[in-house]
Amino acid sequence: MAGSDTHEREQGSDFLPRFDGNGLVTAVACDADSREVLMVAYMNAEALQRTRDTGLATFWSRSRGALWLKGETSGHFLRVQEIRVDCDQDALVLLVRPEGPACHTGAVSCFYRRLDGEGLHRIAD
Amino acid sequence: MAGSDTHEREQGSDFLPRFDGNGLVTAVACDADSREVLMVAYMNAEALQRTRDTGLATFWSRSRGALWLKGETSGHFLRVQEIRVDCDQDALVLLVRPEGPACHTGAVSCFYRRLDGEGLHRIAD
Repeated sequence: MAGSDTHEREQGSDFLPRFDGNGLVTAVACDADSREVLMVAYMNAEALQRTRDTGLATFWSRSRGALWLKGETSGHFLRVQEIRVDCDQDALVLLVRPEGPACHTGAVSCFYRRLDGEGLHRIAD
Repeated sequence: MAGSDTHEREQGSDFLPRFDGNGLVTAVACDADSREVLMVAYMNAEALQRTRDTGLATFWSRSRGALWLKGETSGHFLRVQEIRVDCDQDALVLLVRPEGPACHTGAVSCFYRRLDGEGLHRIAD
């Protein structure tokens, strides 16, 4: 990428998302209040557009190969308050208000275990 | 994946990281105090092992195709206080103490712009 393109992408006000070879950007959903990371998922251009249009976090499911409105089955939607974009525009942070547990296991966050020594230990919610 | 494997991966205490087709897991570095997301990067097995061995966040640079000790050039290391693992073990949260700006642009976080309407707006540090 030419230097001027990099400068514009990093410092400019144009939204120029950089989708990877699979057409995806990484999206990190964080609780708008606690700032805790709730989940990490991926968006293609359509998922991103739907998220912006509806205010409800919509991802691309890599395992199912399909658009995925988070909460469509569970009712646990993530209402997007703000979208932040990183320096090289290949990752997003979604500040959200969750309408229930963000994790399909029922945990508030998908990150409910910490790595310690060789094993995982559950963190109190 | 068989159901029992899924159960063990989601509920068990064994660390069984799921590297993607490129041999990577997504790693989200968050400030251990403020909980703000500082950067999103990727780790292969070696980067993860080095991070665990040294306590300094080490990634795999997808653009350079090389291991990347964050701060090796700038001195702005990320000291890892805790590693959290998500339900299906393909993403990590690193709670870190940054020894300087996390972003190569000099910003505290790489996520220094919010998306608003069609454009990006800088957030005060």
